Amino acid sequence: MHILAGPAELGAWRAAQGEVAFVPTMGNLHAGHLRLVEEARRYAPAVIASIFVNPLQFGAGEDYERYPRTWENDCAKLAAAGCDALFAPAVEDMYPQPQTCFVAPPPLADELCGAYRPGHFRGVLTVVLKLFNLVRPQTALFGTKDYQQLALVRAMVEQFALPIAIVGVDTVRADDGLALSSRNGYLSAAERAEAPRLYQTLAVLAERLQAGERDFHRLEQDAAAALTGAGWKVDYVAVREAGTLAAARVQGGRFVVLAAAWLGSTRLIDNLETAGP
Amino acid sequence: MHILAGPAELGAWRAAQGEVAFVPTMGNLHAGHLRLVEEARRYAPAVIASIFVNPLQFGAGEDYERYPRTWENDCAKLAAAGCDALFAPAVEDMYPQPQTCFVAPPPLADELCGAYRPGHFRGVLTVVLKLFNLVRPQTALFGTKDYQQLALVRAMVEQFALPIAIVGVDTVRADDGLALSSRNGYLSAAERAEAPRLYQTLAVLAERLQAGERDFHRLEQDAAAALTGAGWKVDYVAVREAGTLAAARVQGGRFVVLAAAWLGSTRLIDNLETAGP
Repeated sequence: MHILAGPAELGAWRAAQGEVAFVPTMGNLHAGHLRLVEEARRYAPAVIASIFVNPLQFGAGEDYERYPRTWENDCAKLAAAGCDALFAPAVEDMYPQPQTCFVAPPPLADELCGAYRPGHFRGVLTVVLKLFNLVRPQTALFGTKDYQQLALVRAMVEQFALPIAIVGVDTVRADDGLALSSRNGYLSAAERAEAPRLYQTLAVLAERLQAGERDFHRLEQDAAAALTGAGWKVDYVAVREAGTLAAARVQGGRFVVLAAAWLGSTRLIDNLETAGP
Repeated sequence: MHILAGPAELGAWRAAQGEVAFVPTMGNLHAGHLRLVEEARRYAPAVIASIFVNPLQFGAGEDYERYPRTWENDCAKLAAAGCDALFAPAVEDMYPQPQTCFVAPPPLADELCGAYRPGHFRGVLTVVLKLFNLVRPQTALFGTKDYQQLALVRAMVEQFALPIAIVGVDTVRADDGLALSSRNGYLSAAERAEAPRLYQTLAVLAERLQAGERDFHRLEQDAAAALTGAGWKVDYVAVREAGTLAAARVQGGRFVVLAAAWLGSTRLIDNLETAGP
């Protein structure tokens, strides 16, 4: 696997490739990331991942400083997964000057996680656009665990006419249902045992939707109460239209249920799509 | 010359080219635009222009509706100038859905013309980014008459890591000094006779700077008074650092003097760089 430490190395590698598929990550890789790399193989002869913990998408008081950096393990996992190249720029490579030009995301960026993390999606879309411009992939793959991020990346690509196909890849879960996430590493043993409740609660909510319930507000409140009752601090539980994350309509087609909640000092998110109508 | 009426035609033409140089315009072409096309020849074997009057960069009450559209003349001029292709999308091609994702420009976008045209540069940068993504040029050329626009496009390209070289091309002027502009067509005969005063006033200002004067505020006020005294309504006259448009410093290197002022119902802009120190 080629390690590309900066834009110059990336440019030299890229010039020698035809079509490439791209998996942007913040490192601390788990099976969910590796599933993205495996899936990427289906889209292009060359697969490139990136590892970049993007300061622009962390708010004040968030976990930018303590976000887990596990460089050697990450390289070994990517190489074993058959990744062809890894772009690992320094902060100074991505932001050689103070960033004052941004992507201004659609209003969806201020809802759900965006309501609790002001500026987060502006930072995400800005770095994703820069990574796209540097890597120039034909396909880019994102996990559906970050469902709102995926919807916003799709909106940006469409509205900016970027010549890139965006592919969402299903969340990988532990045996007990917990969605794999780098932030699971923050959990104590007791918290880890409690954590699957987030998935279970969303699964109950999805089943009730599937069974025909359409009082979205009540469904959201019941789910939030189940988490709060078990000691979680809930940011939100929401029922939305699948794909666009538009407000759920009683006559809507497919739904997605999403939640963000704190277990101690760790913020976890998860979501589940319902089956078709 | 290939007329490419939409993104599909553009994509087919583009796929058959190597490097291309790009001249985005709003049509109603004059010698300034044609100079851009001629200059573009030096940068790539294929030259493509675009004509698109971008609604996103016009404010309420501005001249979007009456902006001059002179399609047949424009085509003839571009073909005569040796342009290889013309991308002329419809509004529905560029905005197939309501645009809710934008380029948020640097703070410079709120100064000078931006202070008088809120949202203008957001609209400019958003459409320029979309055109870049559709055309995928290696070089793009812009007139220095729109000096602030050029500075902001350069900032966007740099900060978004776009793989495009931006070339500024000198303003083309009428024999009496008036900068060529599509909006000159709005002027009555009497206004047209008065219009060169904008250039002349900036030339006096530049000469005083060149002679060593450094009381920028006084220089700006004198120039504004000269225009106001001749019946103009002045939006601004400003002395700035050349290139970046940062605040002028007494010990600064090269300056640019810029002005925007109304002659009747027509808003004209112009600028002049001083020679090196």
